Amino acid sequence: MCGLGRRKETYNISAPQQRSNGSGANTGRTISFSDAVIAIAITLLALDLKVPQVPESSAAAELPRTLLELWPNLFSFVLSFWIIGSYWLAHNRISQLVGAYDRRMQLINLLFLMWIVLMPYSTALVGEYEHQQVPVVIYAVHNILTSLTLSWLWRHAIRDSRLVEANLDPRLVRHSSFRSLVVQGVFLLSIGLSFISVDVARLSWVLIWPLTGPVLQRHV
Amino acid sequence: MCGLGRRKETYNISAPQQRSNGSGANTGRTISFSDAVIAIAITLLALDLKVPQVPESSAAAELPRTLLELWPNLFSFVLSFWIIGSYWLAHNRISQLVGAYDRRMQLINLLFLMWIVLMPYSTALVGEYEHQQVPVVIYAVHNILTSLTLSWLWRHAIRDSRLVEANLDPRLVRHSSFRSLVVQGVFLLSIGLSFISVDVARLSWVLIWPLTGPVLQRHV
Amino acid sequence: MCGLGRRKETYNISAPQQRSNGSGANTGRTISFSDAVIAIAITLLALDLKVPQVPESSAAAELPRTLLELWPNLFSFVLSFWIIGSYWLAHNRISQLVGAYDRRMQLINLLFLMWIVLMPYSTALVGEYEHQQVPVVIYAVHNILTSLTLSWLWRHAIRDSRLVEANLDPRLVRHSSFRSLVVQGVFLLSIGLSFISVDVARLSWVLIWPLTGPVLQRHV
Amino acid sequence: MCGLGRRKETYNISAPQQRSNGSGANTGRTISFSDAVIAIAITLLALDLKVPQVPESSAAAELPRTLLELWPNLFSFVLSFWIIGSYWLAHNRISQLVGAYDRRMQLINLLFLMWIVLMPYSTALVGEYEHQQVPVVIYAVHNILTSLTLSWLWRHAIRDSRLVEANLDPRLVRHSSFRSLVVQGVFLLSIGLSFISVDVARLSWVLIWPLTGPVLQRHV
Repeated sequence: MCGLGRRKETYNISAPQQRSNGSGANTGRTISFSDAVIAIAITLLALDLKVPQVPESSAAAELPRTLLELWPNLFSFVLSFWIIGSYWLAHNRISQLVGAYDRRMQLINLLFLMWIVLMPYSTALVGEYEHQQVPVVIYAVHNILTSLTLSWLWRHAIRDSRLVEANLDPRLVRHSSFRSLVVQGVFLLSIGLSFISVDVARLSWVLIWPLTGPVLQRHV
Repeated sequence: MCGLGRRKETYNISAPQQRSNGSGANTGRTISFSDAVIAIAITLLALDLKVPQVPESSAAAELPRTLLELWPNLFSFVLSFWIIGSYWLAHNRISQLVGAYDRRMQLINLLFLMWIVLMPYSTALVGEYEHQQVPVVIYAVHNILTSLTLSWLWRHAIRDSRLVEANLDPRLVRHSSFRSLVVQGVFLLSIGLSFISVDVARLSWVLIWPLTGPVLQRHV
Repeated sequence: MCGLGRRKETYNISAPQQRSNGSGANTGRTISFSDAVIAIAITLLALDLKVPQVPESSAAAELPRTLLELWPNLFSFVLSFWIIGSYWLAHNRISQLVGAYDRRMQLINLLFLMWIVLMPYSTALVGEYEHQQVPVVIYAVHNILTSLTLSWLWRHAIRDSRLVEANLDPRLVRHSSFRSLVVQGVFLLSIGLSFISVDVARLSWVLIWPLTGPVLQRHV
Repeated sequence: MCGLGRRKETYNISAPQQRSNGSGANTGRTISFSDAVIAIAITLLALDLKVPQVPESSAAAELPRTLLELWPNLFSFVLSFWIIGSYWLAHNRISQLVGAYDRRMQLINLLFLMWIVLMPYSTALVGEYEHQQVPVVIYAVHNILTSLTLSWLWRHAIRDSRLVEANLDPRLVRHSSFRSLVVQGVFLLSIGLSFISVDVARLSWVLIWPLTGPVLQRHV
């Protein structure tokens, strides 16, 4: 792995004269590929919601009840939809500031996409086993890894001044780091909570939004 | 939620000098992400159409009959295809007039996409239980919420003059509002009708097209 | 339906001053939405190829045999992949010449996409029942409708001089019409052949490529 | 087939005056279509990871064990994710240097996409039957064909000076050829190894990355 970043060519989509220097890939295509992968993963989340199979004769009585039994699946769908949505917004914010993708960033970005692609699996696991600790821990670790990978992408970009826009607002960098820390902190906390109560651990994930939303904007 | 809109930064894709101010996301990427999500949801609708499993020996006699039994699924597929298609055209019309997406619009847009992603589920439910009232009501409520979210997106954009094109035709705004009201009205009516007849309720959804098409163009 | 085309506004993506006149949709977004739908449908074709379920103990002996039994599914996958691929190339050729999409073209395009979205279903049906006539007829009718819709899109565009490029090569129009006629002719022929032999009917579909490729280029 | 390349029209997305000459397709749309297909295939890989079905009562004891039993599926998921990711990066590198797609390149590109679309199937096969030789050989042959098709695309482009950028770096061409040879060599080797040990054959695939990464950059 260590050899991958040795060649530090950078490529800028708005500089066509640099287009032919080779082993990198243009920013526009990386972003649209990432968007497509995230869009598919967010849509596949809904495939885990199964239409209940009830005989038509007893459906009038049983269908409402079996639909209500789907609530843990619906909860984990809605949660994961907004979590993936938040990752997309974060990826979006990063991409707007990053003018070029070098080879190492391509690989970090692919790693991030791998976590996104696995998200429907962890979501289905949490939705299927509502009283188990193992799925909750898997889901939390999965999200910590995803958020760390996104931080890695961001840190790699700002370390190299050739990759980011010149007039980078330091307040924005602070905001972005705080946001990641909150996500990682909440999921770390939920692993601890899962030893006490699986339900509380799962509910604690909802804390992400007030903490990254209004709290972040008032205090950081 | 109330804190989300406090910061009213707006970002314009055609104004690259504003590109680095941070927490928003560019319009082009939001549109292409939305397109991808809608395209996947509209394609996944067809996954609900199952190939009938008939033994090859008796297939000559039974296959045509079992295929004909799929008509409620095919009806709900075609209906939902054109409903999602209409939402896409409406989203398209809105996006053409919106020059910038602020953070709140990003969130309203994600909410709209969540309803779209769930559409194949409601469609499958309606196709599976053709004589039940509950799926019809779920489908109608689902579409009312989708249409209201799209209206919200539109209203939020036109309220803030920085987000829309300067020369906005008032007739177009009237048309767009009328269209939404028709969709919401037809689905509301169908909930009432479902207490009398589930079949009539379902058929009433087809009214959307004559009412938003020729009627709209002649009278509004 | 007849009222839809009454308003003949056209929108050109390269004419931003016309961007705000409303009820249409820009060409770029229509094309990328169509691309996404076609890309998803062509990828979902492979979902019909099921991994055979053989116990691990007897897999060494039985796996090769069960894999070979999948050949009708593989044949219909490869065939449909290249048929959808050809439709995409045809859609591509049309889009390059069409500078603007009016509302009616949007609707014809959505109809074309509906046929594309249903293609994995017809393909699965043909792959599942290899000795039945009904799936062969459904597949042929499905493709005739798809090709006719594409011709309709093309004819609507060239009838209105505001929608196409000015310097339209008449030889190109002739080529495009001939291509569509060949596709429709081959599938029509296969319906007739299916009354004699289902296998011959299915094989006849392969005729599309030599007829639209070398033959077309030598004689038309 | 041989007639397909006879007409050597080439189309350049940056040369709009050539936009109307017909039977080809523009580069931008071919790339975005390819991206969408690759993005969908890479995301569908995860569909093969099934949530284990364990009764909720015994889940605490059995769920961790059944999840661990999924490791061959997880191994083949991760492997295929990075293999498809590498193909995407390679396709990306090629596309950056190719200024125009003629009809033959469109067809080679579609062939490449067909192999990509089939990748989740071969992956599922390898994940399902971990001690069988047949899936390993199928997976290896599949990847050799994919890599050969990509080499074909690349060779066709550089043979015709009108299709590539003028200032093509010969070192880059050598790198790209070496990379393809490594991929093809590793998979060919693994077919031989599979006669000795299926597990060793499967593990040997991991060699691709050190060989195309650090080794390539130091010695070629």
